Amino acid sequence: MTTSILSSYKKLIQKTKETKTLGTAISILHWDMETKMPPKGINMRSQQLAMLSKIAHQMSTDPKIGQLLKQVIDHSDYDNLSMVQKRNLYLIKKNYDEDTKLPEKLVVETSKQTAITIDTWKKAKASKDFLKFKPELQKLFDLKKQAADLLMDIKQTASPYDALIEIFEPKMTSDVISSVFNKLQKGLVLVLEKCTSSTKQPDLSVLNRHVPVETQKKIGHLLAGFIGYDVTSDKSGGRIDETEHPFTTGYYDDVRITTHYYPNKFATSVFSVLHEGGHALYEQNLKPEWMLQPVGESCSMGFHESQSRFVENIVGRSMEFWSYFLPVLKKVAGNLSDVKLQNFVHTINHVQPSKIRVEADEVTYGLHVIIRFNLERDLFAGKISVDELPQIWNESYNKFLGVKIEDDSEGVMQDTHWGSGLFGYFPSYALGNIYSGQLLACMESQIPDWKKQISKGNFQNVKNWLIQTVHGYGNLYDAPELIKKITGTDFTVVPFLNYLNQKYSSLYEF
Amino acid sequence: MTTSILSSYKKLIQKTKETKTLGTAISILHWDMETKMPPKGINMRSQQLAMLSKIAHQMSTDPKIGQLLKQVIDHSDYDNLSMVQKRNLYLIKKNYDEDTKLPEKLVVETSKQTAITIDTWKKAKASKDFLKFKPELQKLFDLKKQAADLLMDIKQTASPYDALIEIFEPKMTSDVISSVFNKLQKGLVLVLEKCTSSTKQPDLSVLNRHVPVETQKKIGHLLAGFIGYDVTSDKSGGRIDETEHPFTTGYYDDVRITTHYYPNKFATSVFSVLHEGGHALYEQNLKPEWMLQPVGESCSMGFHESQSRFVENIVGRSMEFWSYFLPVLKKVAGNLSDVKLQNFVHTINHVQPSKIRVEADEVTYGLHVIIRFNLERDLFAGKISVDELPQIWNESYNKFLGVKIEDDSEGVMQDTHWGSGLFGYFPSYALGNIYSGQLLACMESQIPDWKKQISKGNFQNVKNWLIQTVHGYGNLYDAPELIKKITGTDFTVVPFLNYLNQKYSSLYEF
Repeated sequence: MTTSILSSYKKLIQKTKETKTLGTAISILHWDMETKMPPKGINMRSQQLAMLSKIAHQMSTDPKIGQLLKQVIDHSDYDNLSMVQKRNLYLIKKNYDEDTKLPEKLVVETSKQTAITIDTWKKAKASKDFLKFKPELQKLFDLKKQAADLLMDIKQTASPYDALIEIFEPKMTSDVISSVFNKLQKGLVLVLEKCTSSTKQPDLSVLNRHVPVETQKKIGHLLAGFIGYDVTSDKSGGRIDETEHPFTTGYYDDVRITTHYYPNKFATSVFSVLHEGGHALYEQNLKPEWMLQPVGESCSMGFHESQSRFVENIVGRSMEFWSYFLPVLKKVAGNLSDVKLQNFVHTINHVQPSKIRVEADEVTYGLHVIIRFNLERDLFAGKISVDELPQIWNESYNKFLGVKIEDDSEGVMQDTHWGSGLFGYFPSYALGNIYSGQLLACMESQIPDWKKQISKGNFQNVKNWLIQTVHGYGNLYDAPELIKKITGTDFTVVPFLNYLNQKYSSLYEF
Repeated sequence: MTTSILSSYKKLIQKTKETKTLGTAISILHWDMETKMPPKGINMRSQQLAMLSKIAHQMSTDPKIGQLLKQVIDHSDYDNLSMVQKRNLYLIKKNYDEDTKLPEKLVVETSKQTAITIDTWKKAKASKDFLKFKPELQKLFDLKKQAADLLMDIKQTASPYDALIEIFEPKMTSDVISSVFNKLQKGLVLVLEKCTSSTKQPDLSVLNRHVPVETQKKIGHLLAGFIGYDVTSDKSGGRIDETEHPFTTGYYDDVRITTHYYPNKFATSVFSVLHEGGHALYEQNLKPEWMLQPVGESCSMGFHESQSRFVENIVGRSMEFWSYFLPVLKKVAGNLSDVKLQNFVHTINHVQPSKIRVEADEVTYGLHVIIRFNLERDLFAGKISVDELPQIWNESYNKFLGVKIEDDSEGVMQDTHWGSGLFGYFPSYALGNIYSGQLLACMESQIPDWKKQISKGNFQNVKNWLIQTVHGYGNLYDAPELIKKITGTDFTVVPFLNYLNQKYSSLYEF
């Protein structure tokens, strides 16, 4: 291999690293906006973010990147590059082609509008007033639609909405999702009916025991410690803060999660910490030598969600985990000493149609996601308008889950995603469940006694398995390829539905 | 005036605003690094800051600025520009000339090294190990010396150290400072001797009463509320966090302060909050229409310090303030009910030579600063080396203040400034005291009953006076000009020494 191709390749990687570094700085400003920023700071913050996203866009669309890409890809030594190098080039090219397609003006306006829309969403949600949110959401939707139209062209997707899905889940289409979601929906409804019609039902009252916020913070730290997400030591690379809607942000050595604390609903913070902690582990355990390179990223949002759901649900809601952790919890929480393991585990897995996605059980959760997917798909297809979202939302909840939405704060405004411009993101949540089912089946074949290990308080082997099997691959493969590489089979909903049937038939005795 | 000069002027202002916006984003990343960042994040943060400072340097040295400046300044209509426009141009030119003098490589390296040196300072201070700190401090000093040599050339100052002083205190020289500090030192020593030899001495034990950290946080909020620095409402533009060394950062609508809480030394957080709150008021009350313009900045670091000292000392350590606030404090703190006003005020103004600058009284404080000024001046003149700093520091403390430094954490490593590369900054603290004395004399002539107002819990008129007299001028004048414009007299130490004599003769009955 001549030095010429390597020298061009290195220049490309250097440019990519700079853009990524700027991206991590932008993430901190977003985190600050959500957690610490004084309310009046919003206008200045939106200017800062607009300016930085403008700079990032300039960096990622620098014509020099196009030239270097051409030099490397057309080079006679191209075939001699390593697989990692080729993947980096593929990802740089994909990103460059997409970014050069979007005009800087659109990028800057979208960034400004996003900051404003998130802020408006918060206020509108607090005052249960969708009309306050609507004009800003409409503006953001219009900008996203413009971007989707442009991206559809370059990505050659079947629809503008598909182009947005592809941002979060490369190589995934709305048609495949529709088809898988149909199977998922049928499977979920079957389990749901069996659970709700079972005579064995848990006593839920334990979940309303009062646990002070300060105690819940301690519990959060213990949970983080259990899964090996260090937030307390002087070598820590993480932290836990409080936001209305929990999230994870960061990269490698600085990955932060948020949760929320309700004194009479302690379990919500328990599972938020486990969920976001699962995300955090993924970011922290990407291959160190790939840091700031395109391959040194997670595979897809769906895969990210598979990691959070794996830790939250498959581990965190298992009998084995609580046989270890319930005594710990009792010691810290004080007033849970009479709680019985069997009922507690049944309680935290209680299946009941509800209004709030992030508090939904594993069975109904997918239905919440399917509702959002259908709304987004129809919105971008022009079949419904932003104005109609609340009404259709409420009708869907009634139809799919049989619940009545009382106001838009518990309805269409419950999630931050649309206010943050994250259209096309929601499907990832359910894809994550599906991937996590496939990963579980695979892990069980490789670590048959994993449950026993968890029941002894040992998460290390499971964590290492996730690191070796998922985290360590970074973004070396697209999701459909990665899941096949790991499990030997294509994307399928079967293992996830098997897992649910097995778990819930045991809990509900059907 | 033709449109041509205005159009060029507007372009210049736009460019300046963009650089300032980036600067405010960088400030947030610095704040996060000091307050919230997980320890492992330091390397990535130093890369982020290096990259952003590189971008900021590119923006502020854009040759287009030089072209626009030339177009505007050489234009036949230049004389018709307003005073504010001319001042903006002067400041833009000064900044451009200085920034283009510094090579990008030096700027980037300095930014990286600063992040590393601060981090090392923290660790070295915790382990009382100057040898750990020394190599990083040496590297940072070498970079700063390079910058000082280059700036000396463009600013035509008498020495490299003068070039650094001029960054924080434009139009100030080390010769003027030496001369004024001589007078200050003599005056302070006189008051100090009278205080220490007085038979009337306060009972200090009240300062060691236990006040829990949570209670101190409440007190901090009350103090912030008193001075009109809003940190709690949903229109707040500020916040209070905890750091080893308190500081203020931010601009207009997002200005943050930090403090530290010691359960058995509650007064330190009281006066940190007042001090930093004084800084915060300055930044928050710059003229709204000047936001992001060069005139929409504070006048100098010395003037900034005059505002913090005014609020902390002149107001916050006065009999009148405590005649109002002591009952409030008693109510919140619980175990201070037996404290007597007279003794309390004497206690918080107790004069005693000590080791730690930020905890020093108003009389000895200046001596701490003079020690640092002498060390910096000699360091940059090559008369002493970084290696010798601890020894000379300790000797100076023995000579000036008669105290024995036991280890370098309470000696040369007590302050964050040198680890942060802020050489030339220290004199500003004493200049601030001197300005505050002049401002006080002026305010007393215009609001003769200001003390009575404070004693009734009304800070509004004093605050408005500061806004109209100082904050509202932004950076329209350099400090020597501004102090003359406000008070009618030149920079002089007399009013400050008068204030000290009057205050301490009353407290110590001399």
